[in-house]
This record gives sequence, structure tokens and C-alpha cells, in this order.
Amino acid sequence: MTTPSPLPSQTFASWLEDTNDITKAFLAAGQIPGLINIAGGLPDPQVYPAAQIADIAARAVTDFPAETLGYGPLDGLPELRAVIAQQYSSDHVQLTPENVLITTSGMQGLDLLGKVLLDEGDIVAGQFPTYLGALDAWRPRKPSFRQLLLQSNALDFVETMRGAKFAYTVPNFSNPTGRLVPESTRRALVEAAAETGTWLVEDDPYGGLNYDGPLPPRLLDLSADHPTPQPGPYDGPVIYLGTLSKLIAPGLRIGWIIAAPAMIQALILAKQGSDMCTSGLTQRMACEILKAGLIEQVNPSMLNLYRKRRDALCAALDKHLSPWFDWDVPEGGMFVWMTAKDKRLNTDDLFKIGLEELVCVSPSSVFDAEGRFTHGLRLNFTLNDESALDEAVRRLARATVRLLRG
Amino acid sequence: MTTPSPLPSQTFASWLEDTNDITKAFLAAGQIPGLINIAGGLPDPQVYPAAQIADIAARAVTDFPAETLGYGPLDGLPELRAVIAQQYSSDHVQLTPENVLITTSGMQGLDLLGKVLLDEGDIVAGQFPTYLGALDAWRPRKPSFRQLLLQSNALDFVETMRGAKFAYTVPNFSNPTGRLVPESTRRALVEAAAETGTWLVEDDPYGGLNYDGPLPPRLLDLSADHPTPQPGPYDGPVIYLGTLSKLIAPGLRIGWIIAAPAMIQALILAKQGSDMCTSGLTQRMACEILKAGLIEQVNPSMLNLYRKRRDALCAALDKHLSPWFDWDVPEGGMFVWMTAKDKRLNTDDLFKIGLEELVCVSPSSVFDAEGRFTHGLRLNFTLNDESALDEAVRRLARATVRLLRG
Repeated sequence: MTTPSPLPSQTFASWLEDTNDITKAFLAAGQIPGLINIAGGLPDPQVYPAAQIADIAARAVTDFPAETLGYGPLDGLPELRAVIAQQYSSDHVQLTPENVLITTSGMQGLDLLGKVLLDEGDIVAGQFPTYLGALDAWRPRKPSFRQLLLQSNALDFVETMRGAKFAYTVPNFSNPTGRLVPESTRRALVEAAAETGTWLVEDDPYGGLNYDGPLPPRLLDLSADHPTPQPGPYDGPVIYLGTLSKLIAPGLRIGWIIAAPAMIQALILAKQGSDMCTSGLTQRMACEILKAGLIEQVNPSMLNLYRKRRDALCAALDKHLSPWFDWDVPEGGMFVWMTAKDKRLNTDDLFKIGLEELVCVSPSSVFDAEGRFTHGLRLNFTLNDESALDEAVRRLARATVRLLRG
Repeated sequence: MTTPSPLPSQTFASWLEDTNDITKAFLAAGQIPGLINIAGGLPDPQVYPAAQIADIAARAVTDFPAETLGYGPLDGLPELRAVIAQQYSSDHVQLTPENVLITTSGMQGLDLLGKVLLDEGDIVAGQFPTYLGALDAWRPRKPSFRQLLLQSNALDFVETMRGAKFAYTVPNFSNPTGRLVPESTRRALVEAAAETGTWLVEDDPYGGLNYDGPLPPRLLDLSADHPTPQPGPYDGPVIYLGTLSKLIAPGLRIGWIIAAPAMIQALILAKQGSDMCTSGLTQRMACEILKAGLIEQVNPSMLNLYRKRRDALCAALDKHLSPWFDWDVPEGGMFVWMTAKDKRLNTDDLFKIGLEELVCVSPSSVFDAEGRFTHGLRLNFTLNDESALDEAVRRLARATVRLLRG
């Protein structure tokens, strides 16, 4: 083709010059025949309660045609907001529907947060390494990032959070590290939020995937008690993000934000210009799913399945990768996080050689806003069965050997 | 309550200082008992083919559990993209799935466009008056607006579009004016886009609601032929936005963008950080709806219903409001646009008095990025039946008399 392109000559918005498209690379990699993909964060489709959801879908449309097929309120289906407010209320935190906004997935929650809080150059204090999707969501707002290191103490938190628009955390089985943040650190984060007047985001997609025991209290609950228990509906600094994606099915794209009413009101304005309202059909389905206790019904077998796979992955790592990498066995979530013993081992390079060996992993650089962290890897254990996980690790070991030989 | 608020002290992003929340006011107004709402752009729920959609929903989950309940590709379900590419291909324009992105509603299409094209201060040449939702979608990007007046000629278009990031048009039964843009004007817009190298957005939610006859060719088709017919997949400057919302049901939140592959690739990056992917369930349902020809099945009765209501509204206007307002009978869409004979008649004030008279209308100021156009009104005729429309106009006439008496 030698004809000149008729495409308009203008450039795209400036943030696009500086974006990564590694998620697209993962998805494209998914098309390579024979590849084992342990890069993503995908559930195993066998955990979806499809028969029950098919029935719920049909009944939702039949019983609520105007609600499921029409436009709904910007802030979400009132009954769904009430159910969520009730499920998250506790001895510590009292919630009303005014504390709840329904979002089209947890990812949209992150997008809306960026819209309402970030102007160009504003600071985000982000748990480091940071969930790739959060970096993607905020990049169009052009913030700058400070690394919030959760192994630090309360004084460090205050220093990092002071002047930031918000702090971003994934306390339960963080993406990418899989780490469970202990109660003492949670209390220090809440203390620092109060001292600095900074919003504190608690992103919690993985809280239900706890394989080894109960969880510490939520930041949301801790902040309601801090410094003294609050009377009335929640009005504190925590912005809690929940989702159905990991506990039922991502295909419904249903998430929720729990926050102070003033924050919810701002988020509604951003929601209005983002997609007007979330699907009435998937919202009604979410409402029936929560009311029927479907999450609790499917959870035990989901935990059994994923616990076995975590153990299989870690056993394979012990066998094949222990000379070169360190890792902790995660108590929950979907990922094992590994760091190279030798920081010169470049995992961006390992990612590429891995594709040649037919295994796809997530290199650590994508979890760093500046792309400088290049000696870590995130491995997923929820999508593939035990033998595929073992084979994936063998391939990764071969790729490591090839990388080190140069 | 005298306790100090524990809310963080930081301000929100700067665009929120300057936003309007009239859509929220409309929705809140919907709660006033006895109010007749002719402000929105809502379909009548009786047009939704609920029984067929309930069946499609259940079969979608049963037959495609992993696809409907799991994560899908960023750019959308391949089969749905192919169906849309095929349906919009013609003697003039040849489309492939690479020309198509699925969006979570037409509104998300507008949001994504703003993300990929607008930096602060960039210029949008917007058909004036401008769809409120588009203004909402772009406000977080802080563009400036030039008024694109479609009654003008090609020379004016070139002047208005030169240096703009994109031109925004709703050629079929524009929101708010209901006007059908004639073919000569469409050709002039395409000509101006080619001359200035500016993207040309064709937002088309209402194209199927043509009560009085066939439509002129799409900008998409005209631009494929300009200056000479293009070989191969579409690679021109038009960005076409479609949606199921007005022709089947808004509750599915399914829209699509058709554009040059380079634009689609940029939009995918924005989509990734907005909601990752559109619901697999509602996408599969959209695919089955399109393949089954459900739009064509329901369209004749929808047109009959809405045509009668348009005629009833216009008859009531003739009877009750002709002393003070001018309007054209729209050939399609959902709205009648009225302008006051006396420009000093302030429709923001009329909106408020109207609420007291239990009728809710859309004042023209919300369709002006600067809020200065204050002598117009947009009235909807699709949601209410003939007698309610007549009563609404009587109430609006009473409100007008009260306003003029001061």
C-alpha cells in the first residue's frame, strides 16, 4: 500500500505516549498454541455457578423488566446498595445506602477515584509494588507516584502520605505480592490517614480467598473506631472497593465503593460521565446472588481448589526455581510473588524467553509506575491445574537457565 | 452534630468545581409525586421485548458459561465485533472486526474518546447545542469548546474544525434539537474533516427512530468515498458511535465504536483502564439479539408508538404554547426543541417554576458548555402517553404564564 493514510494528523492525548500495554501482550500471548498462561489473574471457569446464574438471569428480566432493561439511578439499584450496606455493617461500622455506589467492576471504581481526586501532577501514595490495573486507571490523570512500603512503620506512613491525594492499598493478599497486611500495619495506616487528612483506599478483591485462616479487621472497620467510635453512618477517610469478580464471576462486571457520603456524591458525578449507570440486569443479578448467599455456597469448594493449586505451584517452585528466586507461600489470593536472589536477573528479559518456552508470567516492571523494578515475577495459580502448574514452572526454569547463559 | 468532620481535607479534582448536576436533578425530580417528567430521554418500558430477552439471557449463560461469566478480550467479544462490522459494511464502506470496539454503553464511547484525544485546553468543535452527556463525559479532561453550527456552510466548518482535536456531531435527530442533518451538510462536514485533518465523531443513538422516511447516508459511508473510494478496511477520519439503548434496551449498557484501526487501538488502551472489558453476558446477549434480528422485529411497533406521541406533543404545543415558543416537528428521535420568541424568557427559571407545576423539562443551558443559552427547552415524547403529554404541556403553559407575570 503506497497511498497516503487519510488518518487525521493530530496526536493522541499525552498520557498515551507513556503507557504500557503488557495486559494486551498477555491476552495476545493467550493465543500462542500450547502456551501455559500463569500471568493473568483469572478464575478457573469451573468455579462459576453457571446453572444458578442462568436461572437468576432469566428471572431477573422476567420479574423486573423495567428495572433490568431500562436506565437506572446513577448511584445504583437501591436494593443492591442496601444489601451491600447491610452486609458490611458491623459492631464497628454503621453503613447506609448513602455510603454505597455501584460500579461497573472494581476497575471502574479505580477509574472513578482517579477522576474525582487527581489533577495532573497530584501525588498518589501507592502500596509498592502496585496493582497494574490501578496504574492503568490513573495514567490518563497524569499523577506522580510515591512508593508506600507496607513493611514500614507509622512514622514512614505519615511522611509518605502527607500531601498525597490518597493512599492506595490492597491489604488482603495484595496484587501482585499476595501478602496479607497484619493488623498492626493496618492500624498504623489508619492512624496516618487521620494525621495527614489523606483518603485511604482499601481495594479488596481477594478478601474471600483466604486459604489458611481468618483475616485481620478491614481498614474500613478500624477507621470507624478511630480515634473514637463514630456515631451514625460512616464518615471516615477509608474508600473501600469490593467486587463480585473473584468470588462469583468477573463477567457480570459488578463492583461497589463504600465511602463517606461526600465522597460518594463526587464519585456519582464521575460515574454519570463514564457510563451513566451500571447495567440494570447485572445489578439485579448481583442483588439476587448476594441475597441467596451464593458466594458462601460456592466458597468452600473454590478455596479447596485454589489451595491445592497454590500448594502445587509452591512445591514445583521448591523443586525447580529455588536456586535463583525467593518467595513466600501466600495465605490467600491468586498469586505467588518471587524476587530474584541476584537483582541483576532481569525479569523483563525472562518474560520474553518464557514466551519462547511457552510459559507466560508477569514481570515486576509492570507493577512499578516507573518500570524500574526488574527482578521480580508474579505467578498465578488459580487458572491452571496442578500438572499444568508443574509444567509451567519447569518451562520457567528452562527459560531462567537460558537467560543466565546469556 | 458539633463534632469536627473526620473527612480528609483535600479538595477534589478541579473539574468538579465547575460541573453541573442537572441530570441528577432530573432523576431526583422523578421522585416528586404526581410530576410528569418530559425532561429525560427514556424509552417507554413497554417497548422492551422482555420475554425474548429473558430467554436470550438464560441461553447465553447456559450455552457460553466461560465467555459470559469470565473476563473477555479488552476490545470485545470477537463474534459481536464481526456481526457489527458486517452490519455496517456497505457498497461504500468495508469494515473488519479491527474497526470495531465494544463499549459499556454509548456514554462510555464518549468517555473513551475524551481520554484518548483530550489534554487540558484542547479544543472540541461541538455541534451546538450539544448533548449534555457528552459535555459530562469530557469535563474531567478540561477541554475548551467551539460551537459547530450545522446550519453553516463548508467554509465555516473548516474554520471551526481547524486545530480542534475532534468535531462532535449527532447527525440523526440530534440531542437536544431533534434535527436531521441533510446530506449536503454531511458532505460538507466530511470535506472539512479531510481538509483540516480533524477526527469527525458521528454519534448515532437515534438513527433507527425515523418516523417520516429514510435517512441520508452516514458520515462513515460518505467519508469512505472521500475524496475517492478507499480500498480495504475503513481507515478514514469518522468515529462512529452506536448503541442498543434506544433500539432495544438501555439496561444492557452495550455500545460500539467504529473507526480506523489506529483509533481503535488507542481506545482499547483507554478501555483497559476504564472497566477492563464489557460484561461477557450482556455482550453475548447483544450478539444473539443482533443475529436474531430483534431490532428489526420490534422497530415497527416502536415507531408507531413514538410517532403518535410526537404528534400528540406537537398538537398540544400548538394549542398551549405557540404564543411564546417556536419549534420544528422533528422527523425522528425522542425530542422536540423549542426556542422562546423573546430571548429574555429565561428557561432556567421556567424549569424551576415547572417543577412547582409538576412538570419537568430540560432547560437549554445544560446543552451549552458555558451555560449561556437560556431561552430554549428540550421536551421528550417517548416516555409518556398522549394524555400525559397533553397535561404536561398545559402545566408548562401555566408555568410560562407565571414566569412572564414575574
